[in-house]
Amino acid sequence: MTTTPPVTLDDVHDAAARLKGVAHRTPVLRSRTLDALVGAEVHLKCENFQRVGAFKFRGAYNAISRLSADQLAKGIAAYSSGNHAQAVALAARELGSSAVILMPEDVPRSKADAVAGYGAEIVTYDRYTGDREAIGAALAAERGLALVPPYEHPHVIAGQGTAALELIEEVGDLDALLVPVGGGGLIAGCATAAKGLRPGIRVVGVEPEAGDDTKRSLEAGRRVEIPIPRTIADGQAAGIPGELTFSINRRLVDEITLVTDDDIRAAMRLAFERLKIVIEPSGASALAALLAGRVQPVPPRVGVVISGGNIGAQRFAELYAG
Amino acid sequence: MTTTPPVTLDDVHDAAARLKGVAHRTPVLRSRTLDALVGAEVHLKCENFQRVGAFKFRGAYNAISRLSADQLAKGIAAYSSGNHAQAVALAARELGSSAVILMPEDVPRSKADAVAGYGAEIVTYDRYTGDREAIGAALAAERGLALVPPYEHPHVIAGQGTAALELIEEVGDLDALLVPVGGGGLIAGCATAAKGLRPGIRVVGVEPEAGDDTKRSLEAGRRVEIPIPRTIADGQAAGIPGELTFSINRRLVDEITLVTDDDIRAAMRLAFERLKIVIEPSGASALAALLAGRVQPVPPRVGVVISGGNIGAQRFAELYAG
Repeated sequence: MTTTPPVTLDDVHDAAARLKGVAHRTPVLRSRTLDALVGAEVHLKCENFQRVGAFKFRGAYNAISRLSADQLAKGIAAYSSGNHAQAVALAARELGSSAVILMPEDVPRSKADAVAGYGAEIVTYDRYTGDREAIGAALAAERGLALVPPYEHPHVIAGQGTAALELIEEVGDLDALLVPVGGGGLIAGCATAAKGLRPGIRVVGVEPEAGDDTKRSLEAGRRVEIPIPRTIADGQAAGIPGELTFSINRRLVDEITLVTDDDIRAAMRLAFERLKIVIEPSGASALAALLAGRVQPVPPRVGVVISGGNIGAQRFAELYAG
Repeated sequence: MTTTPPVTLDDVHDAAARLKGVAHRTPVLRSRTLDALVGAEVHLKCENFQRVGAFKFRGAYNAISRLSADQLAKGIAAYSSGNHAQAVALAARELGSSAVILMPEDVPRSKADAVAGYGAEIVTYDRYTGDREAIGAALAAERGLALVPPYEHPHVIAGQGTAALELIEEVGDLDALLVPVGGGGLIAGCATAAKGLRPGIRVVGVEPEAGDDTKRSLEAGRRVEIPIPRTIADGQAAGIPGELTFSINRRLVDEITLVTDDDIRAAMRLAFERLKIVIEPSGASALAALLAGRVQPVPPRVGVVISGGNIGAQRFAELYAG
């Protein structure tokens, strides 16, 4: 007897139908230089060119699009200082709803501006004294808002999986798929799509060395919590895998490999100088693993998810100054 | 009685046939953010994604492909410390020839490495005491090499024009085409293609404020020399228009507009942060003119040539530090 998994390939196909004409079908880039460096045929699925600059729009839109008209009229809530905030703000607007985003008081102005630019209301809290989950839940309850979590939701996960679906539809068979891992929603969705379409594909997750909670958890066979990691890959600074994402990833992810901040910087630099594209640190980790030789044996034909490109010019300058 | 122009639309079509399958047909990018900022429908022809990272490959390959088998066996020469050097090196290799590139002794290591990486021989000279044109001519004569100039050549100009040809073939009617101007080869070719296909199109050249030799020359009706300009747009630091390019541009270019280094920095930043693409300073000048409101009235449907993306991460960091 088998139980139905919480997210299936059909769910990903459903999400793809909803996202059609709304999310970008992002380009798959190739580079002779990159292939020669890695010794493989590399296909980069470029979610840095997705709306809001990251894959997060896929999941947020898919989840919000399934809410009732009544709920859409009441509005949406999310807590995030990163790409999920912008994704929820834009998806809510696109669906004729409204969003309230809970952000720390000291969020960079550019991030708050981006969210406000999509028409969302921002509520701030003190990140040192406030518990964002409690504040978010209270806010949602008080105003009747639907809370859209960044990864712990089947519709969010199915939405993220459309990135892998598009990639495999476009390029066909791949020996392996490399995906950055933060809370685990992107890889859970991508693994669902990839293994559903090509059961033999090797799915490799990539975490920053300092943020190896999913690697440890998979090894331990249970969710392991680590101290909040210090890494330039801020989108991957999770301390513990999600319950739902872990239940999927322990079944579908073949291995997790780790990268250092220097590996990430080198990958971002290669992307900048040779591919002429901008990748944020978290978004570059899967590419970094491949370039640093941390995926062995090297898969002859490999897909790499570039998960986002939201980094300011000044922050980028800090990473390469001197 | 009319005389045949030195470069015609047919020449550009010929060049396109030679470049097919060799040069990249570069993407034309759109951005809602950009359109909203400018108040126009903007189509970016992205030569930063061209081989060697700049439009220069088009002209170099077209010119070298027309040399005799005997000449290809003897080899090619060029003097350049910039994108033309890489373009000639790669085009020569692709055509089974060899290249000797004359570069100043103090050329950045990364640029010399790129040229050497394409299999070219590098000969250095002292930029303070040596006359590169004389040294280049002597070298070419001595070894029987064919000198491929960066812009003063009909085949080079026709090759560069294929960028505009592709753009207009892809997007159809445009009210205006904005093109960066250095020595004038890119705009001469692009204007030939654009006016040939769409006689009513407005062709606008963009120079850095400090390097306004083509603007002054068009106003004076003759080639005007200015001191070597100081600008971050090193690919546009020409002191006088070419004879051939000026003869074409005075006939086909409707106006020249100027941008400051700050305009260029702002355009590069927008491209980086919102479009997630890397543009070198010279490559961003046409976009900078549009963003800074220096093209008036704003053309409702406008093509912008992004001419190149070769800038190191560290140099970029210098431009945005602090």
